[in-house]
Amino acid sequence: MPTYKAPVENALFLLNDVFHIERYGNVPSFAEATPDTVAAVLSEGGKFVEEVLQPLNRVGDLEGCERHSDGSVTTPKGFKEAYRALTEGGWIGLAMEPEFGGQGLPHTIAIIMTEFMTSANMAFAMYPGLTQGAFLAIRLHGNDEQKKTYLPRIANGEWAATMNLTEPHCGTDLGMLRTKAVPQPDGSYKITGTKIFISGGEHDLASNIIHLVLARIEGAPAGTKGISLFIVPKFLVNKDGSLGARNGVSCGSIEEKMGIHGNSTCVMNYDNATGWLIGAENRGLNAMFTMMNEARLGVGVQGLSMSEVAYQNAVAYAKERLQGRSLTGPKNPDKPADPIIVHPDIRRVLMTMRAFNEAARAFVIWTALQGDLVMQGEDEKTRQAADDYMGLMTPVLKGFLTDMGFQNAVLAQQVFGGHGYIAEHGMEQFVRDARIAMIYEGANGIQALDLVGRKLPKDGGRAAMAYFAELSAFIKAHAGDEAMQPYVKPLEAALGDLQKATMWFMQNAMQKPDNAGAGSYDYMHLFGLVQLGYMWAQIAKVALEKKSKGNGAAAEMDAKLTTGRFYMERMLPETAAHLARIQSGADAVMALPAEAF
Amino acid sequence: MPTYKAPVENALFLLNDVFHIERYGNVPSFAEATPDTVAAVLSEGGKFVEEVLQPLNRVGDLEGCERHSDGSVTTPKGFKEAYRALTEGGWIGLAMEPEFGGQGLPHTIAIIMTEFMTSANMAFAMYPGLTQGAFLAIRLHGNDEQKKTYLPRIANGEWAATMNLTEPHCGTDLGMLRTKAVPQPDGSYKITGTKIFISGGEHDLASNIIHLVLARIEGAPAGTKGISLFIVPKFLVNKDGSLGARNGVSCGSIEEKMGIHGNSTCVMNYDNATGWLIGAENRGLNAMFTMMNEARLGVGVQGLSMSEVAYQNAVAYAKERLQGRSLTGPKNPDKPADPIIVHPDIRRVLMTMRAFNEAARAFVIWTALQGDLVMQGEDEKTRQAADDYMGLMTPVLKGFLTDMGFQNAVLAQQVFGGHGYIAEHGMEQFVRDARIAMIYEGANGIQALDLVGRKLPKDGGRAAMAYFAELSAFIKAHAGDEAMQPYVKPLEAALGDLQKATMWFMQNAMQKPDNAGAGSYDYMHLFGLVQLGYMWAQIAKVALEKKSKGNGAAAEMDAKLTTGRFYMERMLPETAAHLARIQSGADAVMALPAEAF
Repeated sequence: MPTYKAPVENALFLLNDVFHIERYGNVPSFAEATPDTVAAVLSEGGKFVEEVLQPLNRVGDLEGCERHSDGSVTTPKGFKEAYRALTEGGWIGLAMEPEFGGQGLPHTIAIIMTEFMTSANMAFAMYPGLTQGAFLAIRLHGNDEQKKTYLPRIANGEWAATMNLTEPHCGTDLGMLRTKAVPQPDGSYKITGTKIFISGGEHDLASNIIHLVLARIEGAPAGTKGISLFIVPKFLVNKDGSLGARNGVSCGSIEEKMGIHGNSTCVMNYDNATGWLIGAENRGLNAMFTMMNEARLGVGVQGLSMSEVAYQNAVAYAKERLQGRSLTGPKNPDKPADPIIVHPDIRRVLMTMRAFNEAARAFVIWTALQGDLVMQGEDEKTRQAADDYMGLMTPVLKGFLTDMGFQNAVLAQQVFGGHGYIAEHGMEQFVRDARIAMIYEGANGIQALDLVGRKLPKDGGRAAMAYFAELSAFIKAHAGDEAMQPYVKPLEAALGDLQKATMWFMQNAMQKPDNAGAGSYDYMHLFGLVQLGYMWAQIAKVALEKKSKGNGAAAEMDAKLTTGRFYMERMLPETAAHLARIQSGADAVMALPAEAF
Repeated sequence: MPTYKAPVENALFLLNDVFHIERYGNVPSFAEATPDTVAAVLSEGGKFVEEVLQPLNRVGDLEGCERHSDGSVTTPKGFKEAYRALTEGGWIGLAMEPEFGGQGLPHTIAIIMTEFMTSANMAFAMYPGLTQGAFLAIRLHGNDEQKKTYLPRIANGEWAATMNLTEPHCGTDLGMLRTKAVPQPDGSYKITGTKIFISGGEHDLASNIIHLVLARIEGAPAGTKGISLFIVPKFLVNKDGSLGARNGVSCGSIEEKMGIHGNSTCVMNYDNATGWLIGAENRGLNAMFTMMNEARLGVGVQGLSMSEVAYQNAVAYAKERLQGRSLTGPKNPDKPADPIIVHPDIRRVLMTMRAFNEAARAFVIWTALQGDLVMQGEDEKTRQAADDYMGLMTPVLKGFLTDMGFQNAVLAQQVFGGHGYIAEHGMEQFVRDARIAMIYEGANGIQALDLVGRKLPKDGGRAAMAYFAELSAFIKAHAGDEAMQPYVKPLEAALGDLQKATMWFMQNAMQKPDNAGAGSYDYMHLFGLVQLGYMWAQIAKVALEKKSKGNGAAAEMDAKLTTGRFYMERMLPETAAHLARIQSGADAVMALPAEAF
């Protein structure tokens, strides 16, 4: 049976020693996020997920969710109690505003808790996860009455929430959506249509489910410019806040999926359901993007989470499983064989995961911190810079981290040999669960297109130029530091590849947009590799400082320096292959006529 | 529901136009393998798998195998009838010797049929697949009575066969195996022990199951030098060939696995079961390697098979699914959107699979042809050269093709977006099924070690040097051919990387063997990439010749030339990243003490 221990220490090291969150005391939500408070919250959160959520991971996979003939859905055994404990602990509202009943902590802290929850039980963590985006959408785009009605009970977990975008004939291309909204004399709308792949569309965890639904108001323009966003609660809410009649929305079926069986993925039928417009007419996509950016960050975290828990279990197995002898002579001479961790190829796999995990966690925390600054930064310049960074990095974080998370779950499974393919060890569940993160919230190919086609050229490339300048300044600042060269030199080369690729798009994609499309996926990975390299360089700097000051455990700092070096020598050089593919352009990619396939 | 069409035309193109099998008429099994016969066999075989096996693929996944309380095992609905049709068609004995009731065709033809069967239904194809290796082991190592007793009924499919190696505490490290064999006065042995992960260990397809079992004769030396191979039939066979008493071997349980649910993966309990030694005492591993090399070739083919069927379904979906518009303007202006095959990133994925499939098929066919020459080549030099090639290439074929097959199943699933994650489309089954091929018959990390640690240095590196010389000669021979430069130039660069990596091992791994272990996996992939590059160069040459002679459909030849160019521009350059990782050595891989993980 798999185990999990929340990496609290590592998160605190990144928050305090690498990113110095004490510097952000002027940001409202950080005021009370003192090192002691944060340590207490994360340590309590870690304990909660280890003791309450992780033991339910396998039962969730085996049992899955069941839809009954009346359309109600039962979640796996134990999920209801765990959800109640989650709400009672105040975990859902951790980063929500106190005026709506939240704890008011930074998102930076909440995202770490999301990582922990997802490692422990991804299918479970998706229920409260989706609620986060819905809260934000209502808070930013809802009117006062909507905020007052829904937010406090979303924040305390009494009500859950969903996002309803996809229809059978349209996923990525939302311009084709058909669900219609007919205005009623009382200001409400009647919503009719079918939505698919709705995570947590129906379940037994909360007393009400607030659906945020994209639909087209009768007579609205075709395409994406005619889409509006609606609040459609499962139970209508009376003036006094009590639950009223059942609304015309129901779960038609549950999908049979590859993984995340503990989460109910529903076909939702809207049949003259009562809904209320949120935000402006025909501006629904705009409001939905608020949720999607939040959700994309959360999905990127899932890649890290799966990689971390898979890594932990692979390490435990590699230390315990005896098979073969070390190439350099027996390490365990009084036993019939050495533990497989002595074999370089097993090490290669473990180091690959390890080198990803810590840098990916840094990437996630840094990005969430920028998210807090977008909302609460004290001046326009700060907010602007943070927003530029978020826009540019969200597709990289979502696409790159989920690809790597899946790859690492597969690597971890491989460490187990045949036992990795057997369900009881739990490794194959990590692979099946991790797979979805590459697909939902915009398949990773769409993330890559968003990066190259939209985020890169936005505002004359301002965000990318600021990013390149930041890295160049870091590299320059450490040019004279001998001990930093194993980190800074490879980073410089990789940044050069990223800049060359960017330049190549500028010169070749205007006239021939297929050149951008054909190189977009490689560019997303190239960007992700550079970003993790930058994270490692910053971690290495802190580790070197701590070592030289005799401050912090030397062995732990050495482990960071070694892991960072592995990243630089073994993973970062892949940037060159990405650049070569990008520069080969679209010719060979597009030359074959469609009929020839 | 997924579909499958056997790529008969492509196999015939490779056999006839690229590898000119008519040249091998002097090899006994090729004498009757005229182009017409081969075309008829493959076309009939293709029809059989499309009509009989493929429709059972999903039901096999859904139903799985069931073990009853008496230890008997029922295969999924329809498997029994399909197996009967397979035996009646003579497909199991296609490449087995006529003296034992086989059809006597080359293995080169049988391996293509294995590809087709596996694409159509991998879990089903494993039942007859394992029989192939057992047949060979008995034919090469059994005595006359054993051959007479078992081979004809294995060849006609009346009896099935299995390989029993793994035990709970030992998989890769067979030296630790504990199953014991006690000699009996009548020359038989009593076998006692537990074997796990036995594919097809028990089922209802055949009237008897012949288990080949590794065990240790009482008093034999410890380690691998004390292992012998035994024949242990499920039902003892009477002198007259009729079935006698039930032997002391039974299925204790069926494993719950990630995929290949239609194949029964059994825990087999041997409790004083009667067995007969096959081959010499304590030389069991040697005999077992005969089966394992055969099986490794078959497993490598599974990588190709899964990639091919996943590709076909991804192409069909990409042509049909309407979503978004081409970057170069609408291609489908009268419809609400363009088919997704217009998008460069979808093309990139389809081309990646396509560029793998045809070259991997060439690799498989060429290797099987060498296998035929090992057995039947007319002179020692021919047999030797073929054997060198087989030894060197078996780990590459197994490891590289199964890694890529899985990767491509994942890519194909991605083309379907959310629909790829849903069971009904069948794409997630391909991913789950393809995953096992990277693990069994020696996990791919073991293949890599076998390549670098054993096959490469064997006979002073003779096999590798012959391979490098062959490629160099090919490159030199086409140095003046302008049209071949887009294929020969990249191949030359990639071969250079392979040679540099080989040299690096020679210079750095003697003193420090961890340098070999740390680079072995990258070396296996580097080798595989070069080999597929060589296959594409040969295909390109034929396509150019056919075009210039106006011989063969020009559009088809153009498609090959384009696909080959894609391979050269987009896939082959990855060799540089592998070389960089190899040359970074073992330092960063091994530096961390085990406790630090």
